[in-house]
Amino acid sequence: MSALERIHRQIDDDFYEHLERVKTLVRQPSISADGTGMAEAAHMVADLIREAGGEAEIVPTPGHPVVFGEIDVGAPKTLLAYGMYDVQPVLGETWEVSDPFGGEVLELPGLGPCLVNRGVCNQKGPLANFFNALHSFRAVGEPYPVNLKFMIEGEEELGSRHLPGFVGAYRDRLAADLVFFGFYAQDPKGKVVMHLGVKGILFMELIARGGDWGGPITRGVHGSNAVWFHSPTWDLLQALSSMITPDQKHILIDGFYDDIVSPSAEDEALLKRLVTTFTPEMQLEENDVRRFKYDLTGVDLMRKYLYQPTLNIDGIISGHTAEGTKTLLPHEARAKIDIRMVHNMRPERMLGLVQDHLVRHGFADRIEVIVHDAYPPAKTLLGGNPAAEALLKTYRDFGFEPEIWPHLGGSAPFYLFTEMLNIPTVLGGLGHGGRAHSPNEYATLEGMKLHEKSVAAFLTNVASE
Amino acid sequence: MSALERIHRQIDDDFYEHLERVKTLVRQPSISADGTGMAEAAHMVADLIREAGGEAEIVPTPGHPVVFGEIDVGAPKTLLAYGMYDVQPVLGETWEVSDPFGGEVLELPGLGPCLVNRGVCNQKGPLANFFNALHSFRAVGEPYPVNLKFMIEGEEELGSRHLPGFVGAYRDRLAADLVFFGFYAQDPKGKVVMHLGVKGILFMELIARGGDWGGPITRGVHGSNAVWFHSPTWDLLQALSSMITPDQKHILIDGFYDDIVSPSAEDEALLKRLVTTFTPEMQLEENDVRRFKYDLTGVDLMRKYLYQPTLNIDGIISGHTAEGTKTLLPHEARAKIDIRMVHNMRPERMLGLVQDHLVRHGFADRIEVIVHDAYPPAKTLLGGNPAAEALLKTYRDFGFEPEIWPHLGGSAPFYLFTEMLNIPTVLGGLGHGGRAHSPNEYATLEGMKLHEKSVAAFLTNVASE
Repeated sequence: MSALERIHRQIDDDFYEHLERVKTLVRQPSISADGTGMAEAAHMVADLIREAGGEAEIVPTPGHPVVFGEIDVGAPKTLLAYGMYDVQPVLGETWEVSDPFGGEVLELPGLGPCLVNRGVCNQKGPLANFFNALHSFRAVGEPYPVNLKFMIEGEEELGSRHLPGFVGAYRDRLAADLVFFGFYAQDPKGKVVMHLGVKGILFMELIARGGDWGGPITRGVHGSNAVWFHSPTWDLLQALSSMITPDQKHILIDGFYDDIVSPSAEDEALLKRLVTTFTPEMQLEENDVRRFKYDLTGVDLMRKYLYQPTLNIDGIISGHTAEGTKTLLPHEARAKIDIRMVHNMRPERMLGLVQDHLVRHGFADRIEVIVHDAYPPAKTLLGGNPAAEALLKTYRDFGFEPEIWPHLGGSAPFYLFTEMLNIPTVLGGLGHGGRAHSPNEYATLEGMKLHEKSVAAFLTNVASE
Repeated sequence: MSALERIHRQIDDDFYEHLERVKTLVRQPSISADGTGMAEAAHMVADLIREAGGEAEIVPTPGHPVVFGEIDVGAPKTLLAYGMYDVQPVLGETWEVSDPFGGEVLELPGLGPCLVNRGVCNQKGPLANFFNALHSFRAVGEPYPVNLKFMIEGEEELGSRHLPGFVGAYRDRLAADLVFFGFYAQDPKGKVVMHLGVKGILFMELIARGGDWGGPITRGVHGSNAVWFHSPTWDLLQALSSMITPDQKHILIDGFYDDIVSPSAEDEALLKRLVTTFTPEMQLEENDVRRFKYDLTGVDLMRKYLYQPTLNIDGIISGHTAEGTKTLLPHEARAKIDIRMVHNMRPERMLGLVQDHLVRHGFADRIEVIVHDAYPPAKTLLGGNPAAEALLKTYRDFGFEPEIWPHLGGSAPFYLFTEMLNIPTVLGGLGHGGRAHSPNEYATLEGMKLHEKSVAAFLTNVASE
């Protein structure tokens, strides 16, 4: 029996002990938005690293600390495990379990027994599973196949706002051959999905206010004055509307599309394969939407989804929004908008284009732009990326041919690894969980066991690449 | 000594008793928005009518009741006193007095002793003063110079939504020679302002939602989908922006200006006189605004203010408006907008034009229009309107030459009187109050006394016209 086979059997044998380790971590509330339990959770993660034989430090940031750890086993290769110990708030949510942090196991329809708890899917479950996998190496007397480093942050749910500073300061100590972010990559039917990158994002707030040029400055005024006073609300609407065609298909900010490059041959090949297992219509169904805004199908439509940048209004507010009539000329209007960037686009350049647009349309002194989040896209190719190859081999070892996406439609700050640290990066692992950021967030028990086995196999595959 | 002189002396003599009557009425909370104290306040008003020798009934409506009353003294003329017993909420306001319904007298800087209480200015103070004036007739043994009718509503602060129904049902019993709405028509420096009409208003809510045509229908979806799903928020912004030029000077709804008629010769004469005592720049200062949207001054600018219709956004809301980053493609966006109409414009016609505009721009099935309030403008000429002549004479009797406005920049449903009942209508009376709808709403004690005297004089002048 190979070392890996013995480790897998050990994971089966120890699973209820392993489940307890997961429960302990997820039961500890760690809500970064209001700080609840964050210090306790950081200590818990540091202890998990130490239990696994490593050294850990809790590194302060201007926000919640990053837990950094190292386990040097003298192996030729080093894996940096990135993860997060913070979770979304539960305020206002209604859960089927009595306590969102109770660590209860429930039988969910069609899924079998599941651990139901805030953060169990995103991402404390996979994090605890990673340590469980390490314990199984120790239990069978096998050394870890790679050296390990850990960077477990406490602000992922806040946009990882202090992680760039940490990565800058710890750049040398973070050196590794690959970065791994564990999550349950299987859908409810067992299909494995693999993403080779993410879009970038520029999340801004545009604030229109009155000023020397006109409009109310300090307070809303009686609506009848709209006949001769300027309205900052109209300004914001006119400025935003000038950025996109009425059919929402073309963004009118000069230069917006200039940096886009055509999908690579590898991406085109992936796209062709992708639409054999994923069709755009699945996204309609999942989101309860009836039609796309393009009259396209298949690869052509997926190409829009993955290779077009987006200008989206996440939220807008101004004036009287409560029930009933109140005539008001508001003094302020705010919109949160985001630009999602595809390969080769840069947030600083897009911000410049937005500001140029406001200048050109006469809104420069009327609308303030505040940047809340900004990071470029990140992409790791499949061919020539040993980390991706090792993960793909792992999935195939378990009999899964994954559905491979050139990248996510969503965004994550993985440029920190691929660009700042210049380390190949992969995300995934077997297992299934769901309802992240929603009530009844869950992970299946079978999936967690499978995740631990896939992590053990992945570490072994990385070492033998 | 004339009857009126004796009545005026009586008002001086009885003023502290009169003040107690005002205090009793204003101390009774009557917040139509949440119903607080409304039944008690309606009974109090009915009792005031009965105390003055009349018959009163509290007439139910689908909302708060209307208090109707009659005092027939066999006089040739009948005055219908319109008023309101409801006030704005005080929630979230910070007052200088310990209780916004405490009926406290405070010395306010530059104003002398004032009664500080929610509703004392708008409009329970003038309402109680009216009854005080009646009591003074009785105290000196003088009959009322006119028959009196009362229509005191409890929903003025809610847009008088059930008053048209009441007026329709009581049309015959409301017959009168004039309608009078009492308020303190003097500014802090003593200048008397007289308004000969009001603008109309069409207050609408526009709601954009996803549907069969596309866009999220039941819930907001992940913002990354903006790349291929339509956004109802963009739809609302595009639809609204298409209604007005970017400089906010011209409304682009087809036919919007068609019904406007030029100011009459009488209005033009009033305008020329108006700018000798009121300059547009006073409105800038009062509202803490630096510039108008037109490069005009004097009569030309006042003509814009009073004779141009307005398209205003009172409020707009969609998606994520709380702190921080959340990428969301919202399923719904709502805007409250109002159109202020000048003489000869009709709300039903303007609503049709707005709906036509949405159809023509392709938003008909995407944006729902809900009407919250709709009433036409109302105008009573000065020449040939005996009610206005009697009020003007009253002001002059007291030595005041009023600043006469052809109409208000704001709106009120006075079409109910001028159009539905076809009765000449005036509003005013001497006295000063302020901060209506705001903390520390007040009326000066001297002003209240003066208001009562001017009401007594006005009733006398009406009878002798």
